[in-house]
Amino acid sequence: MITGKNYIGNALSAKGNIEYKTFNPRLNIENQNTFIEATSSEIEMACTLAERAFQRFKTYSGKDKAEFLNAIADEILALDDELIKTYCSETGLPEGRAKGERGRTVGQLRSFAELVAEGSWVEATIDTAQPEREPMPKSDIRKMMTPLGTVVVFGASNFPLAYSTAGGDTAAAFAAGCPVIVKSHPMHAGTGELVASAIIKAAEKTGMPNGVFSNLNSSGIEVGAQLVKRPEVKAVGFTGSIKGGRALYDLAAQRKEPIPVFAEMGSINPVVILPEALSNRGNTLAKTYANSITLGTGQFCTNPGLILGLKSEDLSNFITKLSEEIVAIEPSCMLHPNILGAYEANKEKTLSQPNLNVSADYTSEVLPNYAKQAITTVSGVTFIENPTLHQEVFGPFSMVVQCENVTELEEVISNLEGQLTGTVIANDKEANNYTGVISALQNRVGRIIYNGVPTGVEVCPSMVHGGPYPSSTDSRFTAVGIHSIKRWVRPFSYQDWPNHLLPDELKNENPLGISRLINNKQTTSTI
Amino acid sequence: MITGKNYIGNALSAKGNIEYKTFNPRLNIENQNTFIEATSSEIEMACTLAERAFQRFKTYSGKDKAEFLNAIADEILALDDELIKTYCSETGLPEGRAKGERGRTVGQLRSFAELVAEGSWVEATIDTAQPEREPMPKSDIRKMMTPLGTVVVFGASNFPLAYSTAGGDTAAAFAAGCPVIVKSHPMHAGTGELVASAIIKAAEKTGMPNGVFSNLNSSGIEVGAQLVKRPEVKAVGFTGSIKGGRALYDLAAQRKEPIPVFAEMGSINPVVILPEALSNRGNTLAKTYANSITLGTGQFCTNPGLILGLKSEDLSNFITKLSEEIVAIEPSCMLHPNILGAYEANKEKTLSQPNLNVSADYTSEVLPNYAKQAITTVSGVTFIENPTLHQEVFGPFSMVVQCENVTELEEVISNLEGQLTGTVIANDKEANNYTGVISALQNRVGRIIYNGVPTGVEVCPSMVHGGPYPSSTDSRFTAVGIHSIKRWVRPFSYQDWPNHLLPDELKNENPLGISRLINNKQTTSTI
Repeated sequence: MITGKNYIGNALSAKGNIEYKTFNPRLNIENQNTFIEATSSEIEMACTLAERAFQRFKTYSGKDKAEFLNAIADEILALDDELIKTYCSETGLPEGRAKGERGRTVGQLRSFAELVAEGSWVEATIDTAQPEREPMPKSDIRKMMTPLGTVVVFGASNFPLAYSTAGGDTAAAFAAGCPVIVKSHPMHAGTGELVASAIIKAAEKTGMPNGVFSNLNSSGIEVGAQLVKRPEVKAVGFTGSIKGGRALYDLAAQRKEPIPVFAEMGSINPVVILPEALSNRGNTLAKTYANSITLGTGQFCTNPGLILGLKSEDLSNFITKLSEEIVAIEPSCMLHPNILGAYEANKEKTLSQPNLNVSADYTSEVLPNYAKQAITTVSGVTFIENPTLHQEVFGPFSMVVQCENVTELEEVISNLEGQLTGTVIANDKEANNYTGVISALQNRVGRIIYNGVPTGVEVCPSMVHGGPYPSSTDSRFTAVGIHSIKRWVRPFSYQDWPNHLLPDELKNENPLGISRLINNKQTTSTI
Repeated sequence: MITGKNYIGNALSAKGNIEYKTFNPRLNIENQNTFIEATSSEIEMACTLAERAFQRFKTYSGKDKAEFLNAIADEILALDDELIKTYCSETGLPEGRAKGERGRTVGQLRSFAELVAEGSWVEATIDTAQPEREPMPKSDIRKMMTPLGTVVVFGASNFPLAYSTAGGDTAAAFAAGCPVIVKSHPMHAGTGELVASAIIKAAEKTGMPNGVFSNLNSSGIEVGAQLVKRPEVKAVGFTGSIKGGRALYDLAAQRKEPIPVFAEMGSINPVVILPEALSNRGNTLAKTYANSITLGTGQFCTNPGLILGLKSEDLSNFITKLSEEIVAIEPSCMLHPNILGAYEANKEKTLSQPNLNVSADYTSEVLPNYAKQAITTVSGVTFIENPTLHQEVFGPFSMVVQCENVTELEEVISNLEGQLTGTVIANDKEANNYTGVISALQNRVGRIIYNGVPTGVEVCPSMVHGGPYPSSTDSRFTAVGIHSIKRWVRPFSYQDWPNHLLPDELKNENPLGISRLINNKQTTSTI
């Protein structure tokens, strides 16, 4: 049941007087529940509880944390229809997507459970003593990863489950041993509260300390800003706009004690279509890309917002075909009137730029909150000279850049900001002749795709979801996959520490049977 | 031979008109050579060359980079007496220390060479395709670490070799595949130029691209500030004061494209002496700690500047003994009159704080630039209430805090800023009774030591040199040991990429024979 209250640790709380509701974009009406924004004293209490919980939670074994994570997954599934219905009513997304995203969320929780139950993720590294070494004896030193402390998670508007309350950031933080305070996304506060209730139930069932999790409602930016400034908070995870992510990054950097902010802020995901591929299968590519651009009403971080090619008749034909295909697709609903408003405004701004051609612009009437897709095209020179064209238009929109030659194509790529993904569409060995283009693209992205589409982010250890700024604030980490746990941990060394006081991961007898680097050899041996 | 010029890539250059000299603190005179500060156009040229060099250097194999790193080590050794003499004349440190530090520097270079020649450090992670998977086929995805781009390194005043021109930051950056621009430390510009000449020779001999290394002279803050703002620069390594490190961190965070700054900024390295240990071997501990506090005239980041104990007769006796021991030690020379000046000023400021007792203050005459050691003592309450007492006094200085009880001891520790190290001195199983104290200490440090001294940082994979702010700007990395390479790399994914276009590290046939995570199993197998 949705109460509209905050979870301050295990307790429901609503001391504030700022109220708001979520919105059903399909029905074009407000949803029923009223949510109460967290007050400063509730924020402070959540931080105090988290700090206190951390002192115990950081000592919990991998198996304890795995039990907690699996219990969260179970409790989310137990929410059943209520969760799916709330999700759909707060996003306008179809039931299939809701169930798919729930599966992804549960899968993420279970994969982190598996990771920490096994235990080798801590990168245990041991150098044994050499008391006889000259001129100085060598100490016994042992290192492993240890949690940073309380992590604040800002959920994404476009992934109410997989990148929000119990999404990747939260799952990774719990796995690391960090308490989590979620700044609930106002557009899906009901979904958020339901998932929060599942986390709290799981925490109580598995004996986690009170404060290991809190969920704070917030309709504006104030709650988030206060959280990022709190001394108890040691790291921030964010998925959303560049403006929002950068504001948090700046606040965190200005603290007396700066803290890391991993913000994943989206990108325009350039796709390079090489000439032979274009010539051989331009029509198929047009169909594939029309679908990728409109998938989920274009509301994915990896939406292909930029297509780069060499000026030719084939490219002209591709643009025509892509435009035909995209206007043939039935428009769909966006997450919220505000998201639609931003889409329309950004599209309008782009369409009004000089020397830009609009090759597709859906003009028929649509239902309220439904987005009209569009395709534009510009020359390489126009694109390079006008930074406005480099900005993301979040929604079912893409721009084709027609470059004069390979040099210009490379220049276009080198002038791009950092991106989550880059894609190369090529025939057979065609890519061999474009090493400069590919090298330039690699400099700007976190993941490079061959003959595919950037939409669809597989959750697996080899995935990088992140990239050079502004696609993320720190390209040295990924937001997806088990290695995203590295954002929330730091290495810690014990020197000459008594064996019985060491954590199990570093004890001589290797009671967890994990893989460790001992005197520069990776092994599961004892010492 | 020292020319006083900058290395802009492989070429010596001196277009500027700001001149400066280094200083011999033992002789209390300026050294002969005149150094010319780099101009804005030289800075720009170094950045342009580095950016260009990166496009080639990033493709070099581990074996190529290993050859380069080993050649640097060889060329540094070939500098022989000239290097040692210059080092001593610019620091006042003895020849033994110069040779020891040279050995450490060469050892670091060779250990990174070994790391990249072997190749598994890239954390290759492969998930093979599942074309038949329902509802969606799974792509083949492969991930490895890739270099960030040009790294700017600021050398440390107190380690002219091991943490400067070809020190740990530079060696790690080259190993990662990043070009390096060194902002030479003005106090040891001659040592810096000699080492730079060794790097350039090595680069030429092993066919590295021009621009892979530059060395820029600078007497003030302007050259460094310009470098950190250059768009070609993608990361910064710094060892020095909190003021300097924080200024660079702030500049980097304010860029349009923020870049990571790993600044190691020192700490006061708290040492907790538990009562039984104090009672059993207080006198021995006093002697050991008098030596650790004065080692290298107290000019180590890990100098024990804070000793914490429980108020008792034993603690009083320890303070007396420590004070006797420390004034019996012959004063020694500091690196530079400015360093001595800062020491005297900071010591004076601390000594003038209310409710502080000075238990040792060397008062006899000393040679110019020699430091007078001092020991102070305060109560727990006084320490907690006065943040001035928490500040580092860089030099042969320490403060003993006499806590009323264990609760106050924990409170003192919890009130500390982040530290590189913490030390626990305990008898037998005494530590078992102080888990709260130890847990509090672990929250504040990067390395914890049992029954030892914090000075002496072993270079090995298990070492953490870093810690919570302000001991470093990002506790998620270490500045020492092979894992310090992680500061300069980012993960990069290839999706469905053709095998022949993949880097060797990710090819099916595993031509390098490295260890890889394939479908969640760590293995050296082929695919």
